[in-house]
This record gives sequence, structure tokens and C-alpha cells, in this order.
Amino acid sequence: MDLKPTKPLSGFIELLPVQQRCFDYCAAKMQNVLRLAGFSMLDLPAIERAEVLTDKDNWDEIETQMFLFQKGDTKMGLRYDGTVGLSRYVAGHLNDLVFPFRASQFSKRYRGERAQRGRYREFYQMDLDIMGINSLSTNYDAEIISVINRALESVSEFIGPNIVLVGSRPFWDALFEYLNLDASQKKSVFVLIDKKDKMGDADFAEGLQDALNDSNKEKVIKSVFVDGYETFMNKSEKLDAAIAELTDFMKLLDGMGVKNAKIDLSIARGLAYYTGLVFEFKLINHPELGTAAGGGRYADLAGKFSKTKIIGVGAAIGFSRIFASMLENNQIDLSQFANDVDAAVLIMGNNNVAYAAGVVNALRGAGVVAVPYLDTDKKFKNQIEYADKINARFSVIIGDDEVAKNVVALKNMKSGSQETLSVADAIKEMTK
Amino acid sequence: MDLKPTKPLSGFIELLPVQQRCFDYCAAKMQNVLRLAGFSMLDLPAIERAEVLTDKDNWDEIETQMFLFQKGDTKMGLRYDGTVGLSRYVAGHLNDLVFPFRASQFSKRYRGERAQRGRYREFYQMDLDIMGINSLSTNYDAEIISVINRALESVSEFIGPNIVLVGSRPFWDALFEYLNLDASQKKSVFVLIDKKDKMGDADFAEGLQDALNDSNKEKVIKSVFVDGYETFMNKSEKLDAAIAELTDFMKLLDGMGVKNAKIDLSIARGLAYYTGLVFEFKLINHPELGTAAGGGRYADLAGKFSKTKIIGVGAAIGFSRIFASMLENNQIDLSQFANDVDAAVLIMGNNNVAYAAGVVNALRGAGVVAVPYLDTDKKFKNQIEYADKINARFSVIIGDDEVAKNVVALKNMKSGSQETLSVADAIKEMTK
Repeated sequence: MDLKPTKPLSGFIELLPVQQRCFDYCAAKMQNVLRLAGFSMLDLPAIERAEVLTDKDNWDEIETQMFLFQKGDTKMGLRYDGTVGLSRYVAGHLNDLVFPFRASQFSKRYRGERAQRGRYREFYQMDLDIMGINSLSTNYDAEIISVINRALESVSEFIGPNIVLVGSRPFWDALFEYLNLDASQKKSVFVLIDKKDKMGDADFAEGLQDALNDSNKEKVIKSVFVDGYETFMNKSEKLDAAIAELTDFMKLLDGMGVKNAKIDLSIARGLAYYTGLVFEFKLINHPELGTAAGGGRYADLAGKFSKTKIIGVGAAIGFSRIFASMLENNQIDLSQFANDVDAAVLIMGNNNVAYAAGVVNALRGAGVVAVPYLDTDKKFKNQIEYADKINARFSVIIGDDEVAKNVVALKNMKSGSQETLSVADAIKEMTK
Repeated sequence: MDLKPTKPLSGFIELLPVQQRCFDYCAAKMQNVLRLAGFSMLDLPAIERAEVLTDKDNWDEIETQMFLFQKGDTKMGLRYDGTVGLSRYVAGHLNDLVFPFRASQFSKRYRGERAQRGRYREFYQMDLDIMGINSLSTNYDAEIISVINRALESVSEFIGPNIVLVGSRPFWDALFEYLNLDASQKKSVFVLIDKKDKMGDADFAEGLQDALNDSNKEKVIKSVFVDGYETFMNKSEKLDAAIAELTDFMKLLDGMGVKNAKIDLSIARGLAYYTGLVFEFKLINHPELGTAAGGGRYADLAGKFSKTKIIGVGAAIGFSRIFASMLENNQIDLSQFANDVDAAVLIMGNNNVAYAAGVVNALRGAGVVAVPYLDTDKKFKNQIEYADKINARFSVIIGDDEVAKNVVALKNMKSGSQETLSVADAIKEMTK
């Protein structure tokens, strides 16, 4: 019989134990930041009705990239982000939740697109959302940015410093209106701005020409990225309002202790959801990872599920994009994760297993990670080799003598020194 | 436009924040037991190649219950258990892992069957497996049972006491051989034994008659459940060996401190995988949940992936089966999970947001869960109502006076008492 393949499907992540410990450690550190910020941790289904995931009017581009399937008469699929399920959940629990509602999700999402280098088809994102009924201060946009900033800082020993770039959808809306663009031109230009980072300046200019065919207007749009927003003050009320919102917001971020924020009007966050300020976090030392986290404000989160208007600000941290990539590319020093076992318990003679089990239980009860080697027919040499291979800090050796005297032999695997101790003293030695 | 449905698909679990906190708390407690026992936490893909999930020879019954789908030329599907992915992973990383290898997975699994009451189509299981190359002492079977026992005990305040029932596949193999059953009879009788718990005695007797049509043999098999295994000693070498293995194993469990174990030869664990001792945990106070955890020994885990023989003992804890069921049926007192916020930070006047943000950061830095209310245009009455609704233990109130004096007003939400304190003293008060 042919053997089946042992590699996971391309685009799926599978880590070794030592890598997984680092991944889990970083997740726990970041989640603790969110917990201290009072976000409720939600765990929603990975499978949703197709009608929840897709909406022919708006979701064509995403539909083709989904895992969709059918069971009985029901069409369903795997979620591609956390927002679609959250919208449904919040709309369905308006009376069970307290608003502004702070929610976080750390979960796997799925993209059915063709696997490409550096693109995952199953990946973790860590979402933060704050939602209000009918109104929500933009102070909350700053709070979300501040919390993400702290979450990323909590793992900066691995990923280095970050920067947050803030853009404004209202600024572009106001500028397009000022330039008298029609609906189709607005959309084309906005798509170009969204992709500007990935195009050369020449392609961008050419795209603008195709869309507008008006050298004055093209020049005005290009000037945003050269001269900044200041030159657009006193042009229209809407532009002034958008610029004031943005500059006030940057002052607020600064006042809240976010010192690594910068305006960048090329931040657009695609066509979906967002209606207000938008932002993206980048890792300064890892430009190859692109956007580490991104989000913004949406004026009507759950309009498809409820007549109640839910206004929110939300963001997703690309957890797998950051950590799975860096781990797979050996960009993280894993030495602090090498030792996960405190004590290998080595047992000479099968009649001593019950005594050893008592020792193991005492160790674990005292917070010592203890792994017994239970193939008691193996020689001491094999057993100590195992202790060495699993990087145990100590070996606790138990033979007839130790059982008779109600002690253990404790060997420090680094220094090689060995002493005979009571179990209580051995625990003291291992936990000091 | 019609609104889309807000309920999840049937068979999918969705908890409220307070329920989720209990779910997560129990998961963390149990996972800590596994961590102290030195299990490596693995996180494998939820999607596998169809050829990995299915094998027409052995998996017909499961195939129809899977979520299978296709992307491009590749047929794939969602995992229905943790073992299939683990087998592939271990076979693919023989040189990266140290054996005996201890692995744990806490992850979502999927059953595509028609949704029924109490059956989930997406559910968490917590797996433990210990795997050896070519050999592995049955001491490890006892170790797995001991660790599951401790994991369940760690959450006994919610689920009550448990009992573990131990069965033996070799006993039945030896008895079938002693009774000269042919291959088809062996299979039929084994299926009956596996389903005995769910059938009445009359149906079981009728099934035996259909399968064997031999009243003597039928009587012998029925007697196992009445007289126990003792009457089968000295009948054949294989029976004696199987009985000795089982009785020695029970002594070992007792010696290891597992005092709630009992032999039950009706424990069979289906047709798949298992070749040695098998076991099931039941919750004494929750018979309606059926099997809380189950597992056993398999002689050749990864034979489809590797020529290396991997022997193992493994088990899955039905985490959603236990906790999602109990939470959905309001069988858990959630009062200890009602308060997850220590401090609601209430801000009088938008000019005080930056000061308040500094206070919030100081609180969180000291481990105080702090939620600022940032709709600063709302009246104090609305703000204190919010603090009350989110069950905050304290309100930290900040207005112009507090900012001027560099203090906060700290209100104990239970006693109603309020005092003006420095931020440091407020933190002391909230963390004492």
C-alpha cells in the first residue's frame, strides 16, 4: 500500500512543539493585554450560513476566495474574517450585551484562494471591536489603537518596535467631492489609492490618468502624497472637518501615550466596511510582513442583521501573519522555549512505578512540570538519554534504595551534580 | 431588504460572554494539568486532504458524516477528530520529536452529520496522546488515565466527581477465540457489546442469537456482564493473559492514586484504532452527558503514513460535550464569572480624556481590568449606569477637579462609598 502524504496542505501552518510554545506564549501575552482592557473573549463558529458570508451585491471579490460547501439543503462556508460572525452575534444579542460592547476574538479564519508564498489559507487573527448603539465617540478609535499598540509592545522582544499609520476615509470623500468626481471615478481612484503602496509611482499616475483624464485633478490627488493634507485647508467645509478630525485625533493619541503614530493618507483599507478613520500597524524591523494589524471605524456594522444601528471601531491583528511567518523563517530566537520540562522522573524497576507516580503527583502539585519515563525495562543509560533529549532541567531518579528510604536522587542536568533528597527538599531545589 | 438570520447554524455553539468566561476558565485549568504533565501542545490544521481523512476500506461510516469540499483539483475536508492529523504529523516529524512523545491538542472538530439534540457539529475536544516507537509500556495507559482524572478533578466544582471504567479488547479477542467464533461473528458480537449500554437486555440477547444461533455461546457472552471476568480464568492461555493484564492494570491505577477506576467489559470504544486496554470516564452527577472522555491503546497509529511502527495510548476529553452542554442548559452557577471588570473609568468632559487614559494605563499596568467610558458627552447618570451594568467592582471618576489635583474619585460599586485618592492609592484599594 502506498503511504499517504505527511505534509499539511500548502497554505496551512504546522509548528514544531518548541515553535508552538513561542506562538502560544505570544498569544497569551497579547490576550492578557486585551483582558486587562476589559474585552470580552468571544468564540464564534468557524462555519456560517453562505447567506451570512456572502452578499452578491458587495461580496463578489471575496466569494470566490471562500471555502463554501453544502450539507443537506444548507449552503455554508468557513469564515474569512471575524467581523461577519461578530455582526451576526451582536445583532442577535442586542438585549444580552452592554453597550459600548468590547469584544475580542482570537480564532482561525480561512481563505480558499490559491495558496501563494507567504499567504495562509488557515490563519489566526486577533480581533478587537468596540461597538455602540447609534453613537460612539472617536475616543474609542484612539483606545483601540492604544490597546493594539500595548499588545504589540508586550511581545516586542520578538517582533521589535511598531508604527501606526492613520488615514481618513472622510478626507478622501471630501476631496473627491471638492474635485467633482462622479461615482465611478471615486471608486476607481479609491482603489488606486488603496493599492498605491504596491504600485510604482508611474503605474499610479497612469491609473489616475485612465480614471480621470484631467491633468489638474490628477495633480491634486498626487499632491496629497507629496505635500500632505495641510494644503487642502480652507478649500471646503467638508475637507476642513475631515482634516480637523484627523489632526485632533493625532493629538489625542499623543495624549494617550501613543507616541509612534503618523498620518498616512495612503492608508485606505479597501472598499468594505470602513467609513471613518482607518489605521494600519507596521513592524519597523519586518517590512516584509506588510500590515501587522489594521482596522477602522464602520458606521453600520450589522445593517444586514438588524434594524438597530450599530456603530463601531474594530481591528484585526494578523497573528499568524506575524508569528507563523517569523517562526517558519527562523526569525525568532527560541532558546527561552527550549526547556518546558522541569523534571524527568526515571524509574529503575517496574515495582517502583507506584512510588514514582506518587512523586510525580507531588511534583506537579507543586507546579513542577514532571514527565515520568515509564518504559521501566529500559537501561539507565537510555533513560538518562531521554531526560537529556527532552531538555529536562533535572532528573529525579528512583530505584529500590530510594523507595526503601523514601527519598529521590536529584540530578541537575546542566551541572551534572546529584544528591539524595526527600521529595519535599527536591521540590524546593527545583523551584528555587 | 430582508434581514439575515442572527442564529448560528444548528449544532454550532455560541456562548454569551459570561458563559464563555466559564468555558475558558475550565479549559485553562485542565490545560494547566496537562502542561504540568509535560504534554506538548500542538495546533494542527482543521483542514486535511480527503485522502488523509478517508480510507474507503475502513472509514465508510465516518465519511458520510464529514464536511468534505474541493478547491481546484484538491479534495479536502474538516477533521472529525484529533487522531488523524496527529498520526500524519508524528509520521512526518519522526526525527524532530523525542519518543515517547507526549502531545495534547485542544481544538475544534467537525461532524457533518444531521444536527440532533445534544449533538454538536462543531465541538472542542482535548486530546492527550503518548506515543512510542516500536514499544510502549502499558504504564503509560495508567499515566494517561491518571492525568485525565486530575484534569477532570481540577474542574470538579463545576462538573462533580467522575468514575473511570476500564475495558479490554484482548479479553474479547481471547474469549471469541475460545468460543471459536468466525470473523463475521466476532465483528457482529463486538458491535453488539459496543452498543450494549444503549440497548435493553432483551435486544442484546436477540442480537446475540441472530449473530451466533448457539445458546451455549450466547450464554457465555451474557455471563461476562453478570459474573465478571473471574469465571474465565484457566480456560485458555490468552484469556489468562488478558485477565492478568487487566487486573495488574487496576492495581497499578490504585497504586498511582486513581481510586475511582472500575473494570467494565462492556467498554469497547467502537471498531476503530484500539487494540489493547480501553477506558471511558463518566460524570457521576451527569449521566445525561454519556462519555465525558474516552480512549485506549493502539498498536499502529501511523501505519498509513509511515513504515515506522508507532504504538500509542490516547484519549479525547469531550470538552464541548461537557461544558457547552452544561452551560447551554444552565447547569453551572456563573456567579463567580459575573465580574470581569475591576474598574469602570468615568470621564466628565472630553478635555480630560488624555488624563484618564494615563490613569487607565496605570491601572492595567498594575493588573487592574480597566474599561474607560469614552462617550464623554453622556451625563454622569448614564456613565454610572454603564459601570453598574458591566458589573464593575469600582468606578474611577475623573472630572476637572480630579485632574487639577492629580487624583481620582474611587467609588466602591457594592458599598456605594466614595473617596478621593491618588492613582497609586486607588490601585492599592482595588488590588487589596
